Amino acid sequence: MELNNLLISGNLIEEIQSILDEKDISKNVRYKDENEVTEDDLEWADAYVGFKPKASLDFSKVKWVHSTGAGVDRFLDERNWDPGVLLTRTIASFGQKIAEYSLSYILRHLQKHNQFIQYQAKKEWNPVTPGILSEQRVVVFGTGEIGQVVANKLSSLGVSVTGVSASGSGKPYFDQVIAQNKDLTSYLSNANWVISTLPLTSDTNGMLDEKIFTKLNSAGFINVGRGKTVNTNHLLNALDDEKIHTAVLDVFEEEPLPQSSPFWEHDNVIITPHISAETTPAEAVACFLETLEKVEASENFKNQVDIDRGY
Amino acid sequence: MELNNLLISGNLIEEIQSILDEKDISKNVRYKDENEVTEDDLEWADAYVGFKPKASLDFSKVKWVHSTGAGVDRFLDERNWDPGVLLTRTIASFGQKIAEYSLSYILRHLQKHNQFIQYQAKKEWNPVTPGILSEQRVVVFGTGEIGQVVANKLSSLGVSVTGVSASGSGKPYFDQVIAQNKDLTSYLSNANWVISTLPLTSDTNGMLDEKIFTKLNSAGFINVGRGKTVNTNHLLNALDDEKIHTAVLDVFEEEPLPQSSPFWEHDNVIITPHISAETTPAEAVACFLETLEKVEASENFKNQVDIDRGY
Repeated sequence: MELNNLLISGNLIEEIQSILDEKDISKNVRYKDENEVTEDDLEWADAYVGFKPKASLDFSKVKWVHSTGAGVDRFLDERNWDPGVLLTRTIASFGQKIAEYSLSYILRHLQKHNQFIQYQAKKEWNPVTPGILSEQRVVVFGTGEIGQVVANKLSSLGVSVTGVSASGSGKPYFDQVIAQNKDLTSYLSNANWVISTLPLTSDTNGMLDEKIFTKLNSAGFINVGRGKTVNTNHLLNALDDEKIHTAVLDVFEEEPLPQSSPFWEHDNVIITPHISAETTPAEAVACFLETLEKVEASENFKNQVDIDRGY
Repeated sequence: MELNNLLISGNLIEEIQSILDEKDISKNVRYKDENEVTEDDLEWADAYVGFKPKASLDFSKVKWVHSTGAGVDRFLDERNWDPGVLLTRTIASFGQKIAEYSLSYILRHLQKHNQFIQYQAKKEWNPVTPGILSEQRVVVFGTGEIGQVVANKLSSLGVSVTGVSASGSGKPYFDQVIAQNKDLTSYLSNANWVISTLPLTSDTNGMLDEKIFTKLNSAGFINVGRGKTVNTNHLLNALDDEKIHTAVLDVFEEEPLPQSSPFWEHDNVIITPHISAETTPAEAVACFLETLEKVEASENFKNQVDIDRGY
């Protein structure tokens, strides 16, 4: 594929520019704030690099679109994607970061951090035995790159990890992978934690609902995928019914989370502002340049998005 | 070694009794509260099993003493140990437990749990990027079974781990092991965390003092070894001088920690009540029975204490 004109927008314009300025990539490059990109820019461009594009943009005019994030729902949502336009996404150390984020909250719970902090405030010496990872059973929704790294890290620490995916195909590091349309009752009822790494697609939209949550028995729930994969009301009900003892939420239906959300003041909800897997500028640029090279050489690459599948 | 009369005391009498009652071990067994053990009991016994023996007891009368804990400082402190008396200690999943305890507090810090909880209380959506394990450098004092498991778990998650030991002999899972009498400046000044797994011996008593602490540059400090290995005043100075940003203390010079200790109300100290590595009854009994068998068969076993070394 021949690419001459690159339109760089998104969340990392300055960082990408400072790195590209040092390299000689022999391209015409236009840098633009993502909200200021026009149809004329797209007429000019062969390739578009961005993060959260304006809803109105018509990408059928370019040959290649690259997302500097892992998810591409912001590109595919409410758009009929022209199958002739190549769409790629960033693959970076998201799995490692999300694994550490998840592990930190699982260990926080097992090691009873809150309890000991409360005892300390009262100067109480009150030994309580921590739980251990090797007795934990975790169900991970999504068995792609991120889910696999989460499974790898957790299983290396002795955790039993079951995956749930559309196909149910076996994947490394999972004790087993179950298809999402199968009966998940036995896995969910025995789970200590459920971690969702699901991307947002027409298939996963609202997929985590009462059918899942009512089968849990006082489990923890971590969402590091996308907010819209969860039915918020059903999650709140599951917290009230103690099907879920703690919800650790990094992603939400609407971000920033509106002030009116009941999550903010919920005792058993921990909110983080979509920080579990940030792309560093260096990672974003490295992935973009590698992809650019492969696109031009028409090589195969693993970060091409399957438009029908949505990731 | 022939053993007929076993005196079982310590913290797990009931649990050991219920398990031994089910087995036919063909021994005379006497169970006694550790504070009520007399010299007459020791005259009768071939073997003593305990946890925190009375200071007055003279163990030269028995052939074998077994500690249901990992440390034996309570047996060796202020006692001239008769070298003819075998001393063994419990080896169980302490390393795994201490690794998870330490990891939980390292991740709590990297993932900025406190910061996000404060933002949540104010309904503030304030993205801050977590730190990652692969950029962490940890110095572990003590490279025995526990230190090695800590190094194994941390290094498997990408942490660089340097060990410090009396001998400086290389051990698995450490990037390097340095002798404690060598210059540690470069390792300490670059450390993100220092974890002490040191046993209490005449050599380690008060070893973690200003000579160590003043070389740190805003590191975290975790003590899962013994309280008396730390100079408390020097630790408090290091917190004041921000050489140490957080001290996570599971062990103390005096336990339970006295109400008068300045640690209780210190903003940058986290106190847990000596819970990082509890022996479960099943583990204690399994280790005791295995050791009993090997003692009787005069086999070699790895949990024999070197009295001079103290562990």
